[in-house]
Amino acid sequence: MTDAEHKTEDDDRVFKALAAPIRRRMLDILKEAPRTTGELCSLLPEVDRTTALQHLRVLEAAELVTGRKVGRERHLALAPLPIKRISDRWIGEYARAAVDLLGRLEGE
Amino acid sequence: MTDAEHKTEDDDRVFKALAAPIRRRMLDILKEAPRTTGELCSLLPEVDRTTALQHLRVLEAAELVTGRKVGRERHLALAPLPIKRISDRWIGEYARAAVDLLGRLEGE
Repeated sequence: MTDAEHKTEDDDRVFKALAAPIRRRMLDILKEAPRTTGELCSLLPEVDRTTALQHLRVLEAAELVTGRKVGRERHLALAPLPIKRISDRWIGEYARAAVDLLGRLEGE
Repeated sequence: MTDAEHKTEDDDRVFKALAAPIRRRMLDILKEAPRTTGELCSLLPEVDRTTALQHLRVLEAAELVTGRKVGRERHLALAPLPIKRISDRWIGEYARAAVDLLGRLEGE
């Protein structure tokens, strides 16, 4: 497999992970603060624990969430690098100021 | 429909648009330079014109691409605001410097 094919597979994992509203909500929750698995599940009462853990595995496989074992618990955190890669790919370092300005103008 | 539901629908359009590798390639091409529809199609020889136009409609519905009629042609350009919203949602203004640094450290 070529580097480009590997890259497309990694991208696919990220974009497929982001395609589900429940997984985007999990990232929103983890952006506020790191959480244990139990805390995260209790903040998502609309899905059962098994379903929540499945979604979590998809996010971890895409490297959007990192988990660290602390005693009996796992501490989960948002991992922003895949998001940064999306932003760099289509906005880029140098265009940021212009896009920020455009965003502010549209918000008015 | 509430504002939050509208927002989730808009998000869904963006993330579903980004979930297909061919549509990500179209954005890569348009990031390099704006193109006419004909130019864009000729840069994607692996899909026929009808298929390319269907993917283009998905990108335009998600507001990731803007089209402007110039004479008989349509001029297409990457529209970066949905990408900026993704970055702002999970990275945010203030965390940018830290994430940039992290990105540089990982790249070493």
